[in-house]
Amino acid sequence: MPGNTFGQIFRLTTWGESHGIAIGGIVDGVPPGLPLTAECIQADLNRRKPGNHALTSLRLEKDEIEILSGVFEGKTLGTPIAFMVQNEGHHSNDYDGLKSVYRPGHGDYAYQQKYGHRDHRGGGRASARETIARVVGGAIGKVVLRSLFGEAVKVKAAIIQIGPHKITKMDWKEVNQNAFSCPDKDITQKWEQYLTHIKDQGKSAGAFIEVHATGFPAGLGEPVFDKLSADLAKGLMSINAVKAVEIGDGFACVEAQTSYDEMALENGSPDFKSNHAGGILAGISTGQPIVCRIAVKPTTSTLQPRQTITTNLKETTLSVTGRHDPCVAIRAIPIVEAMVSLVLTDHALRWRGQCGDFSGV
Amino acid sequence: MPGNTFGQIFRLTTWGESHGIAIGGIVDGVPPGLPLTAECIQADLNRRKPGNHALTSLRLEKDEIEILSGVFEGKTLGTPIAFMVQNEGHHSNDYDGLKSVYRPGHGDYAYQQKYGHRDHRGGGRASARETIARVVGGAIGKVVLRSLFGEAVKVKAAIIQIGPHKITKMDWKEVNQNAFSCPDKDITQKWEQYLTHIKDQGKSAGAFIEVHATGFPAGLGEPVFDKLSADLAKGLMSINAVKAVEIGDGFACVEAQTSYDEMALENGSPDFKSNHAGGILAGISTGQPIVCRIAVKPTTSTLQPRQTITTNLKETTLSVTGRHDPCVAIRAIPIVEAMVSLVLTDHALRWRGQCGDFSGV
Amino acid sequence: MPGNTFGQIFRLTTWGESHGIAIGGIVDGVPPGLPLTAECIQADLNRRKPGNHALTSLRLEKDEIEILSGVFEGKTLGTPIAFMVQNEGHHSNDYDGLKSVYRPGHGDYAYQQKYGHRDHRGGGRASARETIARVVGGAIGKVVLRSLFGEAVKVKAAIIQIGPHKITKMDWKEVNQNAFSCPDKDITQKWEQYLTHIKDQGKSAGAFIEVHATGFPAGLGEPVFDKLSADLAKGLMSINAVKAVEIGDGFACVEAQTSYDEMALENGSPDFKSNHAGGILAGISTGQPIVCRIAVKPTTSTLQPRQTITTNLKETTLSVTGRHDPCVAIRAIPIVEAMVSLVLTDHALRWRGQCGDFSGV
Amino acid sequence: MPGNTFGQIFRLTTWGESHGIAIGGIVDGVPPGLPLTAECIQADLNRRKPGNHALTSLRLEKDEIEILSGVFEGKTLGTPIAFMVQNEGHHSNDYDGLKSVYRPGHGDYAYQQKYGHRDHRGGGRASARETIARVVGGAIGKVVLRSLFGEAVKVKAAIIQIGPHKITKMDWKEVNQNAFSCPDKDITQKWEQYLTHIKDQGKSAGAFIEVHATGFPAGLGEPVFDKLSADLAKGLMSINAVKAVEIGDGFACVEAQTSYDEMALENGSPDFKSNHAGGILAGISTGQPIVCRIAVKPTTSTLQPRQTITTNLKETTLSVTGRHDPCVAIRAIPIVEAMVSLVLTDHALRWRGQCGDFSGV
Repeated sequence: MPGNTFGQIFRLTTWGESHGIAIGGIVDGVPPGLPLTAECIQADLNRRKPGNHALTSLRLEKDEIEILSGVFEGKTLGTPIAFMVQNEGHHSNDYDGLKSVYRPGHGDYAYQQKYGHRDHRGGGRASARETIARVVGGAIGKVVLRSLFGEAVKVKAAIIQIGPHKITKMDWKEVNQNAFSCPDKDITQKWEQYLTHIKDQGKSAGAFIEVHATGFPAGLGEPVFDKLSADLAKGLMSINAVKAVEIGDGFACVEAQTSYDEMALENGSPDFKSNHAGGILAGISTGQPIVCRIAVKPTTSTLQPRQTITTNLKETTLSVTGRHDPCVAIRAIPIVEAMVSLVLTDHALRWRGQCGDFSGV
Repeated sequence: MPGNTFGQIFRLTTWGESHGIAIGGIVDGVPPGLPLTAECIQADLNRRKPGNHALTSLRLEKDEIEILSGVFEGKTLGTPIAFMVQNEGHHSNDYDGLKSVYRPGHGDYAYQQKYGHRDHRGGGRASARETIARVVGGAIGKVVLRSLFGEAVKVKAAIIQIGPHKITKMDWKEVNQNAFSCPDKDITQKWEQYLTHIKDQGKSAGAFIEVHATGFPAGLGEPVFDKLSADLAKGLMSINAVKAVEIGDGFACVEAQTSYDEMALENGSPDFKSNHAGGILAGISTGQPIVCRIAVKPTTSTLQPRQTITTNLKETTLSVTGRHDPCVAIRAIPIVEAMVSLVLTDHALRWRGQCGDFSGV
Repeated sequence: MPGNTFGQIFRLTTWGESHGIAIGGIVDGVPPGLPLTAECIQADLNRRKPGNHALTSLRLEKDEIEILSGVFEGKTLGTPIAFMVQNEGHHSNDYDGLKSVYRPGHGDYAYQQKYGHRDHRGGGRASARETIARVVGGAIGKVVLRSLFGEAVKVKAAIIQIGPHKITKMDWKEVNQNAFSCPDKDITQKWEQYLTHIKDQGKSAGAFIEVHATGFPAGLGEPVFDKLSADLAKGLMSINAVKAVEIGDGFACVEAQTSYDEMALENGSPDFKSNHAGGILAGISTGQPIVCRIAVKPTTSTLQPRQTITTNLKETTLSVTGRHDPCVAIRAIPIVEAMVSLVLTDHALRWRGQCGDFSGV
Repeated sequence: MPGNTFGQIFRLTTWGESHGIAIGGIVDGVPPGLPLTAECIQADLNRRKPGNHALTSLRLEKDEIEILSGVFEGKTLGTPIAFMVQNEGHHSNDYDGLKSVYRPGHGDYAYQQKYGHRDHRGGGRASARETIARVVGGAIGKVVLRSLFGEAVKVKAAIIQIGPHKITKMDWKEVNQNAFSCPDKDITQKWEQYLTHIKDQGKSAGAFIEVHATGFPAGLGEPVFDKLSADLAKGLMSINAVKAVEIGDGFACVEAQTSYDEMALENGSPDFKSNHAGGILAGISTGQPIVCRIAVKPTTSTLQPRQTITTNLKETTLSVTGRHDPCVAIRAIPIVEAMVSLVLTDHALRWRGQCGDFSGV
């Protein structure tokens, strides 16, 4: 299948170029009879919107979702849910200068080599604006997950490091209290200073994001290739600017000398005494919190001039002007949550299809 | 689709439990008319075999491939290539003691919760023995890749860190010269001592593996979900014991303050002045070497006693006896290469399907 | 995967309910660089539009296509082509009376049993209005097919029987000359009289449609399940009101006593002396014209009162008022062509993906 | 995906050439914990075996199934079930004369044009011997269907016409009582005479098969493309020698003047007063018997000499010697049932995945 579809039986297909008419998608395989309104999706979209923060890019968009099908009288029909978000506030002419040059660190050259023809305006299909559709898909996924596993299920992400500055405590209650989705309120000021400084220098910063999915039963994941860990890795790595993914202890396990979590009983039920595995063993969830971490690279487009080539193969120097996020991770939080929700929803329905109604739960 | 299939149009499906009759698979979508013999596959299988090394597990298997279909007069027919490798040398009774207990760090509990019924012998389907079929698929993939892009294409992996001991130089010529697939001959003795020591203590070691795919053109990868990076992340994370994947600079990009590779001309052709991106931009290959790194956790089963529970929910202590690898990464090298080959082959054929015969190459 | 997607690597996904905001879809996997405009698609849509004919239903719609993505500067980008057609001219209130009753012969009861919740207005998702999106997909497919196999390729359908009245000659040049897509101009008056008579009686008529795909090379089709014949059967049977499909001689072969087409050379090239097989052997095209025939059932909704039940399980009698087509086959012609084009395009790209650039052609 | 896989979440992949080592397959997505033994599959295989009947081909094979994985302690594990049936009793040398000639009516020419390389022995992959794997898949499907819907579900096929001779009554109890799977015992003698006569003349006969699936609930089928009717059409048309498929009234609806089945209540439950629709409306099952009919063409290989060409493009005449079935439909009965079972199983699990546990049933 072509590459714009994610999921097997709960499935998002997205479309749209950055400076086309709109960004949109289809979510197919949604269970029928679930309550769904534009408002509950809009809330997640608003978290992703640019302009929420002094340090995010200033393209002004309303990013207002239109649901085009699949919902009737406030409930899902079980038919495909199509949606779109108009592109406004864009100035395609701003990009005329980029028509014949490859921006280093962007997909310009790769797209040209692959397709021989590309929409150069704002990155076209490679723009992070495409992730609008992922956030919508993830919001619908969350409705499904709550219907299956109860209101307690949660998928939540936080930034845990910006540049060299790591958090020193993990307080999820703080995450919604600051513009950085930071779980350590003591570090936010340092991040703000760092990013302001970086931005003034025409540079940008990478970041580390952690995501937890809690309240899910043991049993999600389809070995041997569609392991829960493997599909999470794919979903997260498919987000723009992500360069690394780890599950549980991740890279730290290289230097550990054992790797297991002992088991015991807690009020008569199976329990684990630690969670090095990040809630996944042999590719199947264990009932513990599912824990992933991803590395986001520094924004590529900054004010620094850089060497590159033109489409007709001449060397040149490129300076990007205008406003850009010094750290794209800030706006990535709802996107990360969305990808994890999409994976979990698809795996929940796949499990139910093969094995029935979570009888072990 | 169920989870035992990998790839879209070049596609491997695997089957088999550790202590069943055999391990096998089907590779479908193979281009017709390519030379293929059991011998060229057997060479890769032999690299994976246990017993190659004093520090790997000693289950003695011939691991001899039988090709059952899809090849006629030494050439691929374009029809499905089925194959299998008999399971010999296994002693199912060795595992009777594990029937009613969940081994911590293994998939026992997760499988039981998912399916309600499992083959407890040697991990059943969750056993690393399943990776035999991946090595076969990867070997067939390499034949296809060479037919498409020439004999120069290479997919090669090396261990770059075991426990706390990192290599200090990267000499690919060394990799085949030692039993550790190590590119730094000066560190192999330290690794050997470390693993022997670890093993004597009843512990195990994690490792870091790096894989390079070279000689591939720009254009491989299917945005926005089936990015080359995303599919590599999935393929690699689906390997037993892998807990993290990075592309290019990976986690190091968090602390970097810029992230791009400048472009220039080299003999009139587009060239990059660095490879922070690991050969992939916006999910599409750039023509540079494709670079991934993965973290492999320490072997779970060691001699140390550990707390766990039984299938009928009683607490117990489990001691594994017998022989196990102190570091599973050593045998993982051909498996890592296989997964990368499978991803690249599938993407090459998908690209050709949509865009034609690599005309830009 | 959910059921609203057709094709493997050239792939149409459709969405939309009859009386929702719009009908639309996404075509993914389109080769890049092909000329594409709304106009060339609109031409096919216009052929499908109601109101073209005194004997077709009178819902007045402009059915104007909007292309939302995937096309830039008049050429395909290789990214998903999203499109939609607004629903206008519908009067949802007309359907209030149908909210709590199951129309016999329609999908009302089946949808309710499957999903527990349905859009009763005009059939919702089960409406033939959904086929708008198929016609768009087929029009894009034809652009691809011409780029691959030359301008000579043709997919053309004709009605060959309405009620008991069969054509007696097959003149493809006539098909565009009359409102019935009839290849026998001598029978059109009889059809018109028959349909007028039938309609006056509050009845409807079935029909037989034949479709030919010509100019295609030998080699299309993916045994053993995705045979060209099998995928054509699926695509055609998925059209509303179709109840039977045959390939080549089809049902007539039951009474034949042999079934083959002898081969010979024609100007030195392989040739067949007949085409009982309908251009497909063992599921693969032979280079001869690909010939299918389908049976379309009489329109279900007619003026005749009929017995049925209500959603709260009471018996009742239902009389449909308003205007309906006495024979839906008339408007089905471009839909039939579209489904055949979609199948052929997908198979052409699949073949190219696996086997390369039609080198045998 | 390549063409050797059938089904979305209950999925059969088959492999094997007629004169290779074996024929086999993998069934993935099987619910865990179901009782399964080789014996219950073997029973269906035995019904397909050649040599059961004086009028079927005499290749002597034991056709004994080996289950290679996915079953443990007599129950399905939920992991892939791999199986194979050895090819014995074949004489590859018998086919040397066919290496360089295209048999008319067979796939020889089409395979050669597609793949450029083929296994000419007995048709290779195009041989009906491949259907062994379908019968196995269908037998496993039946186990799943009974676990979901109870022991009363049935999928049963019968021959209803051979050559010009149609049955005049439909008594399902007769079907297992004669070698023709004929529901009308009064016609079997006429069929036997007809086939003997046809065979003596070196000719062959086509046939008409009807299949009923009973005991299934309303709700199976995934509009708009994966309608139950569409997937049945595909599955049935993918069987060797099938040239036409109809659902319910099928082609007869062309001459009907209405097409619906009225509804009423029967003991308070929804009921239909007829079954013109064949148990499927808008692509979803209605709870009535699902009724399909297929046309099987006369055996292609008969004793009659025929004109053809050689692989190096010379005209020639070909006479097939040896023993062949005068009517392949006789052995097709279990294959037809298997394809219908595969479709229904896949749709049942897809429905459960999306909508939950058949709560409306």
